[in-house]
Amino acid sequence: MAQAQRITPRAQDFSAWYNDVIMQAELADYSPVRGCMVIRPNGYGIWELMQRALDDMFKATGHRNAYFPLFIPQSFLAKEAEHVEGFAKEVALVTHTRLKATGKAGAGAVVVDPASALEEPLVVRPTSETIIYAMLAKWIQSYRDLPILMNQWCNIVRWELRTRLFLRTTEFLWQEGHTAHATEAEAEAEARRMLGVYRTFQEEWMAMPVLTGVKTDGEKFAGALRTYAIEALMQDNKAIQGGTSHNLGQNFSKAFDVKYQTAAGGLEHVWNTSWGVSTRLIGGLIMTHSDDNGLVAPPKLAPVQVAIVPIWKTDDERGQVSGVGSQVRTDLEKAGLRVELDLRDTMKPGAKYFEWEALGVPVRLEIGPRDLASGQVILARRTGGKGPAPLQGVTDSVTKALDEIQASLFAAARERREQNSIRGATKAQFLEFIKGSGGFVYGGFCGDPACEAEIKQQTNATIRVLPDPEFRSKEAPKTCMWCGAPSIAEAVWAQAY
Amino acid sequence: MAQAQRITPRAQDFSAWYNDVIMQAELADYSPVRGCMVIRPNGYGIWELMQRALDDMFKATGHRNAYFPLFIPQSFLAKEAEHVEGFAKEVALVTHTRLKATGKAGAGAVVVDPASALEEPLVVRPTSETIIYAMLAKWIQSYRDLPILMNQWCNIVRWELRTRLFLRTTEFLWQEGHTAHATEAEAEAEARRMLGVYRTFQEEWMAMPVLTGVKTDGEKFAGALRTYAIEALMQDNKAIQGGTSHNLGQNFSKAFDVKYQTAAGGLEHVWNTSWGVSTRLIGGLIMTHSDDNGLVAPPKLAPVQVAIVPIWKTDDERGQVSGVGSQVRTDLEKAGLRVELDLRDTMKPGAKYFEWEALGVPVRLEIGPRDLASGQVILARRTGGKGPAPLQGVTDSVTKALDEIQASLFAAARERREQNSIRGATKAQFLEFIKGSGGFVYGGFCGDPACEAEIKQQTNATIRVLPDPEFRSKEAPKTCMWCGAPSIAEAVWAQAY
Repeated sequence: MAQAQRITPRAQDFSAWYNDVIMQAELADYSPVRGCMVIRPNGYGIWELMQRALDDMFKATGHRNAYFPLFIPQSFLAKEAEHVEGFAKEVALVTHTRLKATGKAGAGAVVVDPASALEEPLVVRPTSETIIYAMLAKWIQSYRDLPILMNQWCNIVRWELRTRLFLRTTEFLWQEGHTAHATEAEAEAEARRMLGVYRTFQEEWMAMPVLTGVKTDGEKFAGALRTYAIEALMQDNKAIQGGTSHNLGQNFSKAFDVKYQTAAGGLEHVWNTSWGVSTRLIGGLIMTHSDDNGLVAPPKLAPVQVAIVPIWKTDDERGQVSGVGSQVRTDLEKAGLRVELDLRDTMKPGAKYFEWEALGVPVRLEIGPRDLASGQVILARRTGGKGPAPLQGVTDSVTKALDEIQASLFAAARERREQNSIRGATKAQFLEFIKGSGGFVYGGFCGDPACEAEIKQQTNATIRVLPDPEFRSKEAPKTCMWCGAPSIAEAVWAQAY
Repeated sequence: MAQAQRITPRAQDFSAWYNDVIMQAELADYSPVRGCMVIRPNGYGIWELMQRALDDMFKATGHRNAYFPLFIPQSFLAKEAEHVEGFAKEVALVTHTRLKATGKAGAGAVVVDPASALEEPLVVRPTSETIIYAMLAKWIQSYRDLPILMNQWCNIVRWELRTRLFLRTTEFLWQEGHTAHATEAEAEAEARRMLGVYRTFQEEWMAMPVLTGVKTDGEKFAGALRTYAIEALMQDNKAIQGGTSHNLGQNFSKAFDVKYQTAAGGLEHVWNTSWGVSTRLIGGLIMTHSDDNGLVAPPKLAPVQVAIVPIWKTDDERGQVSGVGSQVRTDLEKAGLRVELDLRDTMKPGAKYFEWEALGVPVRLEIGPRDLASGQVILARRTGGKGPAPLQGVTDSVTKALDEIQASLFAAARERREQNSIRGATKAQFLEFIKGSGGFVYGGFCGDPACEAEIKQQTNATIRVLPDPEFRSKEAPKTCMWCGAPSIAEAVWAQAY
């Protein structure tokens, strides 16, 4: 880890704080390529745990992984009209395939060889509907081939102008599920099911409370019939979209002519869904839990769950505490925990504590000679609180602490969200709230895109979702929060990342 | 699975057989993008098992995963002279970032927007040395930061003119390890260690016997000091390079100015290694074990290890055999095996057998009413042989069969390789062998690149490796197999994929 640096306090500059947390914990770094980040091992370790948990859930719901090409012919993207309009302005285009020597040395030694121009430029995938549905057209003949339940883990490129580590980068990693069904009802159930999987993951693994619901037409995916989304509120009271699940209807199956023979012998277009979450979730995790001392990782997704820091002055003591530390590590690892034993000679214990805190490690065990004499160790929680735990049975104490930390992070984040949400807002209350501390505003919506656009233009707040029943206010709003016309649905507004 | 089709026999057309095996088992498919393949779930399942096994080994040897950008500035590639020369003619180049509407509908609706040209074109990574070592220059200050032991799993693009499914595709998936060390000796040991990891994986998991050794200068990686490689012999007696491990020396650290402060206070360039294996290994697996009935998957890498096929005529029988089948599946899964229970009503048992064979499933259990009456099931091995196994303790029988199949596949492949290798060859023997059935030829090599080039030009055979001691012939050759000059090392020649 690099030399310890002060982390800008959240209250002073949330954006600087966010970057400091990432740099201090060595989660990621800026690369020499515009808008592209490097995910360093500490950050990638979180992504690997996220992948494992999500992948298990995808497989438990019958999905299988596959891999489709990085490149999409330009003409494919154009086949679905809304889709190409949504992505045309932010695509990386491969146009040539050779470099040629200039005769100079070093950095200027090569230039693009104009003789290597492709007949048809290729788009680096901004999402894979078009290439996948072109393949489905080849694979699907009959109702017996349905449903097709697939997923792929891959990199995605969208040429974003303003980028932020994890939250918005030109290249990012994600998974994209793609399914094909015989009926509209099955596709709708699938889109809903995967939204539920995302909710379970984000609540139970990330300890991040979420709202689910449907996007308005203005905010839906380019080419979708309906987009369902999952939204969380960060500590600066801005929302983050943590994932989307699209019912694509027959839009793509018609564009790519994906048909199947029905049991009755007819020929129908299939019904599709697609759904995805990305490395952006790591940004959400950071902004949900971390504090002015650095990263706070929820135990289930912490690459290191327990840091053992032996304390010694003499060589004899070193032998004793490191022996016990080593035994404790073995016991904890046997219980399935991810553990580091910190025996570095070059740092004092205080500096080690500081470092493991910045890295977000949920539990730290301090093992000193005096504690050992009393048959105990000191158990410190990243979320606060520190006290003795008997050496005998320390695995149980640690497991219990990790469970409690996981639960308390979720509870604290939910409480914070509720404290920063207002319901049944009038236009005046909405304006005061959004321009003040910010948060989620629940209120009536008339359904008019013009009204939605005006709100966005004046306040930079957007409708995050029309929430699902379990998140709605007890009393349905009667009028639009903004224009006063009759409300067609309750909406949740916020400024968002 | 698609309608069963006949697989071209190997003896008739090995290349057609290879494609038929892949298509019949639905491992992969051609995509509409030139040279890019789609890895279908059956093929990707093998890759996932390969990844899990390799990743565990990489982590056990202290490596951590990270992720670096897909794009590399053109000028970076140019910094190491040999490197750019090696890759300049096969790179995908991103030159623009927007499409613009033409006013037409459908496929021709957009064209590249010339106003979106990048100042510096970006290369889609053909390998990541340059971008990674540019980052290492930022991260490494002192000897305390060393060694850096990293790996990434990602996609790679090399604009190949002649492509074949899995073996050579424009885009492929791989892992690339990248390490930085304080001394030349440590880098050398690392390059060797990872070659050993590849050998363990390919022998123990893929059941693919390999030779290891060093490449000649003419065959080494563009920018490496030394390239170690691992080579296997396919059923058509052509060799496949199953992985490489490079000692990069200080070539890249000098090009990217990656220096560290030594303990003594001096400033030195670091010593690097890089090493990789790719989805090409799936091609090697297919061509090592499969037969005229389709894929043969070694049990450790078979996505489905056991297919249970109940047999019934009446509904009563169906209830009985499917109940037992379900119980057997549960027992096998408890033992950690990957199992499918085939209860499809639409196919006869014989058709199911045929299908599970083509998919390469190592063990099939047939459960019929008569067998059950005798307290047994029929256990059929994909590699041949079929007989009763007691229902009581069937898990043990299956586990034993899988272990035996894994071992016998390796033994058979090794025997085949040895039968198709000749040692101490003269020029005449070499020519007869290579132009005949082909295989590995061991013989003396003078070390002259001109001699090596002449052999390649006349026979299309290349030196696969100068083999490591354990693979060398008992008697060291005294003269060059080709030119008769004194031999500097024994070499292994073959025609290769």
